[in-house]
Amino acid sequence: MAKKKNRIDAAKFRVKQGEKVDLADRPTLIDPVYRSKDDYHAILTDHVGRLSDLQQKLYARNRDSLLLIFQAMDAAGKDGAIRHVMSGVNPQGCQVTSFKHPSGVELEHDFLWRVTRELPERGMIGIFNRSYYESVLILRVHPELLEAEGFDPKKADGDFWRARYRSIADLERHLAANHTHVLKFFLHLSKEEQRKRFLDRIDEPEKNWKFSQADIEERGFWDDYQKAYAKCLSETSTNEAPWFVVPADDKLTTRLIVSQAVLEKLDSLKLHFPEVSDDRRKELKAIRARLEA
Amino acid sequence: MAKKKNRIDAAKFRVKQGEKVDLADRPTLIDPVYRSKDDYHAILTDHVGRLSDLQQKLYARNRDSLLLIFQAMDAAGKDGAIRHVMSGVNPQGCQVTSFKHPSGVELEHDFLWRVTRELPERGMIGIFNRSYYESVLILRVHPELLEAEGFDPKKADGDFWRARYRSIADLERHLAANHTHVLKFFLHLSKEEQRKRFLDRIDEPEKNWKFSQADIEERGFWDDYQKAYAKCLSETSTNEAPWFVVPADDKLTTRLIVSQAVLEKLDSLKLHFPEVSDDRRKELKAIRARLEA
Repeated sequence: MAKKKNRIDAAKFRVKQGEKVDLADRPTLIDPVYRSKDDYHAILTDHVGRLSDLQQKLYARNRDSLLLIFQAMDAAGKDGAIRHVMSGVNPQGCQVTSFKHPSGVELEHDFLWRVTRELPERGMIGIFNRSYYESVLILRVHPELLEAEGFDPKKADGDFWRARYRSIADLERHLAANHTHVLKFFLHLSKEEQRKRFLDRIDEPEKNWKFSQADIEERGFWDDYQKAYAKCLSETSTNEAPWFVVPADDKLTTRLIVSQAVLEKLDSLKLHFPEVSDDRRKELKAIRARLEA
Repeated sequence: MAKKKNRIDAAKFRVKQGEKVDLADRPTLIDPVYRSKDDYHAILTDHVGRLSDLQQKLYARNRDSLLLIFQAMDAAGKDGAIRHVMSGVNPQGCQVTSFKHPSGVELEHDFLWRVTRELPERGMIGIFNRSYYESVLILRVHPELLEAEGFDPKKADGDFWRARYRSIADLERHLAANHTHVLKFFLHLSKEEQRKRFLDRIDEPEKNWKFSQADIEERGFWDDYQKAYAKCLSETSTNEAPWFVVPADDKLTTRLIVSQAVLEKLDSLKLHFPEVSDDRRKELKAIRARLEA
């Protein structure tokens, strides 16, 4: 299959360091980046195949790791994107962690703690389905939850939140300096498309389990979330750990943009299987002789 | 694709509870369970597709988890079996943990500790590439390593090892009672086939990194390992957590037997998407009305 280079321009959806994000200016739907459903499958298969190859080299070289963070409103397609982009990649080189409501023990620690414990090892691709970013998203919309972390919600002012963004940016700078490359995807869904997807989850019995009362309640805070996301994306997109605002009203487009961005990152690492030194080659030769004897 | 039912008889390779295993009696190579390479691919694709469906239901029902343990001599194909059988399954529902040499902190705890921390959550498929079984395999062959665990190697007598088998069997009984279903695969490789695979790893530059001096040293203890495996399989194969002795000289056969055994286990769980109660249905209806308004 011919490589479809540059057909999908992932960089266009990247938030530049220091850029102020207004989500109203960012599309939730674009012209499809594929010509037909068959074309979509062909591109995705190509992407997944290349991803799979690159992941093997990442694993073999055992120097870098890649961390993909997914954040979005409910029903934006995080699970599907992870499934379709990462199925086909060796699960031995890929760890997905979903962060749900923090547990008691987790709330007893700082807000980065439970997430950093799950950071990918060298050679691995780590995927976070939600992350420490919840602490500047859901908590920004519902500051009363800060109480469970031992903070006084009334004192959560601008400085408080700036300190949180800074903690995150500092952590991600540290990670980049230590060969953990972070890419962050905000799947940007319209309110109308969320409504349709919620209706689907209600109407299709096989999807009912995915729908909860809480989802509909959070939908009531839509505008607050959009504001919290915009602020968060503006404050924490850096050259080392960029955010991508990925149009999410068409799931197929989302998956191709995400996989393209991941491929470009992996390509930039110039991965190759470890080279064998002269000494090592001699050693292998000696072992070869023993095995043949 | 038509289901190829019963073409592959996984049960034949299962070690019955209480059965005494003599590995010399167990084949490392059998007549291929596929007619051609194309046929192999067709069966594997069918298996992986069904596995993928069942895994989604396992995840949705959120009651059971499945734990697959792989043990074998070097180059028996553990990594390849995991990759080929589990690629295609949603990595979000599947966690692979490779256990290497225990670290200092890990050696400060009992021999089950580091492994139990990685047990799969409900709804997940956990895969252990090596496991606590190393503590009755490599340690049985090299009892001097017990010192690092705070035991006196000279006192490691029959009772000592029996206590270890018992600890493992007790743990696995407890897991089964709590909906963690354990299947254990010993990939049974011949010494001659290992020799060939080691030579490949030396001859193919892209495989060099997989080969280490330690591998060739352990090969010197082949017979001791076979004895330790036989003892371990005899002592720890139970109805709830059976061992399979899978012929491993042909990798394709290995993968089909493993995937068949996993499928049969998942089928036996009678998985289905969670059913919706009447109350819940009413609730969904009310939400539906609100969303349509």
